[in-house]
Amino acid sequence: MMLKYPNGKPYKPKNQTPEQVGTGKVKDFSFGNRGKTLEEEINETNEYYLSRQIAIVHKKPVPIQIVKVEYPKRSAAVIREAYFRTPSTTDYNGVWNGYYIDFEAKETESKTSFPLKNVHEHQITHMKNVVDQQGIAFTIVRFSKLDRYFFLPFSVLYESWCHMKKGGRKSIPLETFESKSYEIIPGYNPRIDYISIIKKFICNKEC
Amino acid sequence: MMLKYPNGKPYKPKNQTPEQVGTGKVKDFSFGNRGKTLEEEINETNEYYLSRQIAIVHKKPVPIQIVKVEYPKRSAAVIREAYFRTPSTTDYNGVWNGYYIDFEAKETESKTSFPLKNVHEHQITHMKNVVDQQGIAFTIVRFSKLDRYFFLPFSVLYESWCHMKKGGRKSIPLETFESKSYEIIPGYNPRIDYISIIKKFICNKEC
Repeated sequence: MMLKYPNGKPYKPKNQTPEQVGTGKVKDFSFGNRGKTLEEEINETNEYYLSRQIAIVHKKPVPIQIVKVEYPKRSAAVIREAYFRTPSTTDYNGVWNGYYIDFEAKETESKTSFPLKNVHEHQITHMKNVVDQQGIAFTIVRFSKLDRYFFLPFSVLYESWCHMKKGGRKSIPLETFESKSYEIIPGYNPRIDYISIIKKFICNKEC
Repeated sequence: MMLKYPNGKPYKPKNQTPEQVGTGKVKDFSFGNRGKTLEEEINETNEYYLSRQIAIVHKKPVPIQIVKVEYPKRSAAVIREAYFRTPSTTDYNGVWNGYYIDFEAKETESKTSFPLKNVHEHQITHMKNVVDQQGIAFTIVRFSKLDRYFFLPFSVLYESWCHMKKGGRKSIPLETFESKSYEIIPGYNPRIDYISIIKKFICNKEC
């Protein structure tokens, strides 16, 4: 049976054996970046930034409602009943050079457009709030079949979202990404260098 | 049996009945602020800030390593085996007026000093990283027995921490709070108005 989060994303225990649970040791069976999820690629990027003191960005844990916990003798507490809760924010946030950074990572299998059903109302609300407080909000979109990555500023996403709400198009065409967002060329390390894009983005607004 | 997180804090299911689980509805049996934890007071403050668009600050979920999930028919997914993980950051972060905000909330029963054993090495490391990236890092400390609250800038905490590491005092005396930190006078709404303190704090540094 495939495990899934309530949002439909498959649950991945990341090849952990029971002995590895809670130790932070996760064996990586992938070769290069083959088969890595966008989340894994961004986590690696964030680790790179952190280790070089370039930016401090973390993924937020999945929110859980805990109901029952057991305390076995001589071993770690075990959660025996808990439920997934709907997150009220995006997945990633942090700070770079005095700027507050807040973003979501999304993948699509489509080769021609990014379906807005991938984005939830609460994420739009949260990112709108962030931008109103002068934070930097964006979405990293990966077109998996094309192996292309984009930094989609919130303003562009919001325009499409509002348009959809008025009965307009339910997706953002690839051409809009090409003309109004920033393409991220994946590298080795950092893999998804979104900080270099933020520098361009700020410069385009302020320089 | 009292449920506890690995950090020794008691686990509070917040008076939820099974029907309320996952609905976000939590009945509040407290009267005024009597018996509220500092966490509850800060969550209320953050809700106030959010509703008035004053600041966007959220508590991060407790990080969990999920091992087993069940999918009962016609009801929500149930986590049947999961473990608490050590957080690598502080509990709260967000954005106010373009500033990145990052803090931890701590309570002490002591009437004379704040024991540094309440603070973990990873929290110090994280807050140091934040300050190096020009974010605002601090700790809200509640002296529960005195009913007094303080905004402890990271610089003051860090000084005491480094001093302790060199064999110095293992706690921060109340007098240091009175002379080097900012007292927060609790109000009705917002309860713990730390944003007004941040304004003073920035002004003292920049004005």
